Amino acid sequence: MAAALPDPEADGGGCPRRLAEAMRYGVLGGGKRLRPVLCLMAAEACGASWGEAVAPAVALELVHAYSLIHDDLPAMDDDDLRRGRPTCHKRFDEATAILAGDGLLTLAFEVVVKGVRPAAAAAECVRILAEAAGPSGMVGGQMADLQAEERSAEGADGSAGELESIHRRKTGALLRAPLEMGAAVADAPAEKREALAAYGRAVGLAFQIVDDLLDVVGEESKMGKRVGKDSGHGKWTYPRFLGVEGSRAKARRLGDEAVAALAPLGGRGEPLRALALALLEREC
Amino acid sequence: MAAALPDPEADGGGCPRRLAEAMRYGVLGGGKRLRPVLCLMAAEACGASWGEAVAPAVALELVHAYSLIHDDLPAMDDDDLRRGRPTCHKRFDEATAILAGDGLLTLAFEVVVKGVRPAAAAAECVRILAEAAGPSGMVGGQMADLQAEERSAEGADGSAGELESIHRRKTGALLRAPLEMGAAVADAPAEKREALAAYGRAVGLAFQIVDDLLDVVGEESKMGKRVGKDSGHGKWTYPRFLGVEGSRAKARRLGDEAVAALAPLGGRGEPLRALALALLEREC
Repeated sequence: MAAALPDPEADGGGCPRRLAEAMRYGVLGGGKRLRPVLCLMAAEACGASWGEAVAPAVALELVHAYSLIHDDLPAMDDDDLRRGRPTCHKRFDEATAILAGDGLLTLAFEVVVKGVRPAAAAAECVRILAEAAGPSGMVGGQMADLQAEERSAEGADGSAGELESIHRRKTGALLRAPLEMGAAVADAPAEKREALAAYGRAVGLAFQIVDDLLDVVGEESKMGKRVGKDSGHGKWTYPRFLGVEGSRAKARRLGDEAVAALAPLGGRGEPLRALALALLEREC
Repeated sequence: MAAALPDPEADGGGCPRRLAEAMRYGVLGGGKRLRPVLCLMAAEACGASWGEAVAPAVALELVHAYSLIHDDLPAMDDDDLRRGRPTCHKRFDEATAILAGDGLLTLAFEVVVKGVRPAAAAAECVRILAEAAGPSGMVGGQMADLQAEERSAEGADGSAGELESIHRRKTGALLRAPLEMGAAVADAPAEKREALAAYGRAVGLAFQIVDDLLDVVGEESKMGKRVGKDSGHGKWTYPRFLGVEGSRAKARRLGDEAVAALAPLGGRGEPLRALALALLEREC
């Protein structure tokens, strides 16, 4: 991951030191590396090597890191703490955080086209990543989420369906993309691609429901961020619409769906099956 | 240009209406379309049709529009007016402006890979665009510019060389990229690519010097933005380091350099020659 990032010691008229530091701070501060792992596992499940999937895996983490930096900004979710450390704009400043996010997003596409062969697979990975991260994907989901929060603050009531529409874009799209990119670098047949996409859709939504549950019942020390702040902001969450038990049941159903979707991959889908189960049982 | 952008009337769980409106506001509010025009002309000069270069041309304008939206933010250059209208964060709000910029940058890469054939040319255009817009290009230049402004506010003195290093990245990189992308879609030989890149480097810097000159001597009504604000902020500009006459002489020298670089293109380089001369004589 670090090798893909600008070197703060090597300015020389290229990337300014402060920007390189902020970009590295945003990416190298921990995190589960879930999107890269999903991409490597999907490629392997389709018969490709991890080496062939490293570039898209790294690119996905760069995009994820950029999205966290921008989402944490004062004009957005206004968070001071992320993974137990000051957020990027707190550690540096707002302008640097905006530019670090912009830089990471741009770098992600450079990493894909420089690291994926043949060019057709590289172009397909760029398409998948751009669609997942763009205005109908992650960026659109963040916009919809902010608008829902405004409506909620005005006393409007939402529904689990509206919440799902937000999450499908805000977090779901970038959790499905690793599966599709892994299949693309392996040049997998349509049946396997669809299997992985279905797995990605189910796991992505389950992951978000568990996230909401952890915000209600998790331990602050394990989460590295304030717990209970989502409900405190009047934010729409699954427990709010479905209750804690209803949310847990929905997450379990989605986990079963994800595992069932893996059938066309046979034994090669085993690591993805184990990962889905682990995600449902995570504590942070 | 408009066809590449999300449709505000067609949300349907895709791009939220407000985000689509902000993205369109940022792109469709006028501007010289200089980067698209350079891309189309470069492709034509290398024997390709305009049709083959439309996707990279549009992508370049999307990236340019995103950079203006983010640069205008309160945490960055803090501008209220752009092309005679309120800036994006003034017309909408800061969160929407940040997301509109993010969405335009991401969409640019989608437009390239969906519109450029064969895949090898698409991948090359993505690489050129990402390098030009990324941490060692435009984003790095904006960071260096902000840092120079800080130093200037503290009374530090810069030099024309430092200013050139900033502009080569901040504006130069995205003015050189259209030439390289036009050559890439035409699959041009190395000699023509190098000729166009050299032209792009010279034109890009000349363009910035003229920009600085217009800020000193231009008319506010033609510019659509406040004049004299750069020097008012203590910002480093060419006239500050080289004087008005010295800056004019340097811009003319660069214009000659740009025209000379076009030699390998023969008669096909004529539109680019005329454009370089027009850019040096522009009044806004």
